[in-house]
Amino acid sequence: MGRIKDIRPLKWTGESLLLIDQRKLPLKEEWIECKDYESVAKAIEDMVVRGAPAIGVVAAYGVAIGAKQVMKESKNFIDFKAKIENVINRLASTRPTAVNLFWALKKMKKILEAGTNEKDIVAALETEAINIEKQDVETNKKIGYFGAELLGSKEVILTHCNTGALATAGYGTALGVIRAAVETGRDILVYVDETRPYLQGARLTAWELQQEDIPYYLITDNMAGYFMSRGEITCIIVGADRIASNGDTANKIGTYSLSVLAKEHGIPFYVAAPTSTFDLTLKSGKEIPIEERSPDEVLFCHCKDCRIAPYNAKVRNPAFDVTPHENITGIITEKGVINSPDEEKILEFFSK
Amino acid sequence: MGRIKDIRPLKWTGESLLLIDQRKLPLKEEWIECKDYESVAKAIEDMVVRGAPAIGVVAAYGVAIGAKQVMKESKNFIDFKAKIENVINRLASTRPTAVNLFWALKKMKKILEAGTNEKDIVAALETEAINIEKQDVETNKKIGYFGAELLGSKEVILTHCNTGALATAGYGTALGVIRAAVETGRDILVYVDETRPYLQGARLTAWELQQEDIPYYLITDNMAGYFMSRGEITCIIVGADRIASNGDTANKIGTYSLSVLAKEHGIPFYVAAPTSTFDLTLKSGKEIPIEERSPDEVLFCHCKDCRIAPYNAKVRNPAFDVTPHENITGIITEKGVINSPDEEKILEFFSK
Repeated sequence: MGRIKDIRPLKWTGESLLLIDQRKLPLKEEWIECKDYESVAKAIEDMVVRGAPAIGVVAAYGVAIGAKQVMKESKNFIDFKAKIENVINRLASTRPTAVNLFWALKKMKKILEAGTNEKDIVAALETEAINIEKQDVETNKKIGYFGAELLGSKEVILTHCNTGALATAGYGTALGVIRAAVETGRDILVYVDETRPYLQGARLTAWELQQEDIPYYLITDNMAGYFMSRGEITCIIVGADRIASNGDTANKIGTYSLSVLAKEHGIPFYVAAPTSTFDLTLKSGKEIPIEERSPDEVLFCHCKDCRIAPYNAKVRNPAFDVTPHENITGIITEKGVINSPDEEKILEFFSK
Repeated sequence: MGRIKDIRPLKWTGESLLLIDQRKLPLKEEWIECKDYESVAKAIEDMVVRGAPAIGVVAAYGVAIGAKQVMKESKNFIDFKAKIENVINRLASTRPTAVNLFWALKKMKKILEAGTNEKDIVAALETEAINIEKQDVETNKKIGYFGAELLGSKEVILTHCNTGALATAGYGTALGVIRAAVETGRDILVYVDETRPYLQGARLTAWELQQEDIPYYLITDNMAGYFMSRGEITCIIVGADRIASNGDTANKIGTYSLSVLAKEHGIPFYVAAPTSTFDLTLKSGKEIPIEERSPDEVLFCHCKDCRIAPYNAKVRNPAFDVTPHENITGIITEKGVINSPDEEKILEFFSK
């Protein structure tokens, strides 16, 4: 189709990590250069970069950068390894919910543990980060392929938050399925939830779709049920931040409500995520920690120039919620689709 | 309890209508003076004043003001009456969904039709507008009384949009029930949906609750399901813009989704509204016209200084949705509660 552009949220220069500042989108395309691991950690905390798979890739580069810093400072090999572990721990402390972060850091730790000298470890960590990035794009294209196969020739797809190129190393998960559906010639219209409080739908998903001329309507989150009740939505596809072994899925706040509305209206509800999003150590979604973020995200407009609530207003701001597996039609991974997911099917899927 | 303040969105001076500019709340309390009916119509269109009952009261004063204008200009009695009808038609064209507007204008038209001379009509229209205002406050206090009776001694109530003193002539409908519950010594915590795109919850309901020290949490609309799933909400109370003869209820966009979520979680879902909100000429909610408002409400932060979506983004912005009567636990009116409303029960209720 040719019109699909290659949007990337990050660029590895060999020395530093460039990140598009997602807080400034869609109005400004500004890149931030991270030259040390602390600035990578801050970029994750401050949401310069967000999206479960993207956070994993960026954290891996953070370790690669940190290793280069540490090599200059460390007294001996034991000190070198201990300091890199500190780097890993710092990066692990940035966001609690998305498991891809911990998955990527675990891979980096394995490389660290297997290494026998400083120079080789530094090189191997960089190679691993590059691999994680490359694999993520390949994984997303496979998710896109499997997801598009589930769709008819004409679909109106509701999506939530941003699960696109910006939320990953490129191409996207749920938005990757939408991209793949368009690339395979399907007639696709997208309804984009704005996704309060941080407006990832309005700012990022709308921006990606606009770049690629994929037709869409931006709506506020509370309009989704209205359009479902009118029969205007044929399919819902969302991403995931962590999936428990029974299929319960943590994702951006508001996902759970969409799943209930989908069930009420008989609309298929798909989760698109790489297998790295699964946390098989958890029995159910109840064990997934839900990050509660700053009240300011709710109290102020995104630009922070405009307060929208009274002074001293009390706020709740959970960033994620958990969708029970019963509400999920299928989980689309790079290895295929798990239909009507439950513990048995997921364990079987991973034992293959 | 003493702490309930007497918030009013409007003041009749005898010559002009003062309106608190609800677009500036909660940060500024600015009053606008309407000296002619056109400025009253514009104030409704531009949402200086909003809320179904408040719009009705304000439109009635618009006719009273218009009659005084017309008396100075009209050639004869027939011309005088025709010109007032034009005033009524202009005011009726401001907003399509809330029926209280048409209800109040119908009452004013009856006064016009019964009058025999210009001076008496002008005086009678003013008296009728004052009566509509007074009656609205009394009606709301009765709604509050009947609503509070439905509640336990401790409740966590989710509400949507603003249905308070600002949305009425005073006291409020759904928020009136919350006021009455507090006044009768109940232990009440309120969850306030911010109510995108126009943020009536964040700006107006939070402001009213803050004025009266009623404890509340402000949340984004997409968090409501999360708190319900955790058992943190015990009751939902919303207002109404129009209720069909079978109980289907048009209200602020997002209400329908809340009703589905309430059903899923077994949480009582009440509609609080004066009987003037019923439109018995309509068989069902399908016949209620849904206003679609400007995309700018979605594209920009409330302060309009900050664009939150890409240039040329396509937007849908329905301002209301319809909740089917099956999802409503009860409709609380000034004449009592209609439990599990349907056509039969509503017709019986109105035939008393």
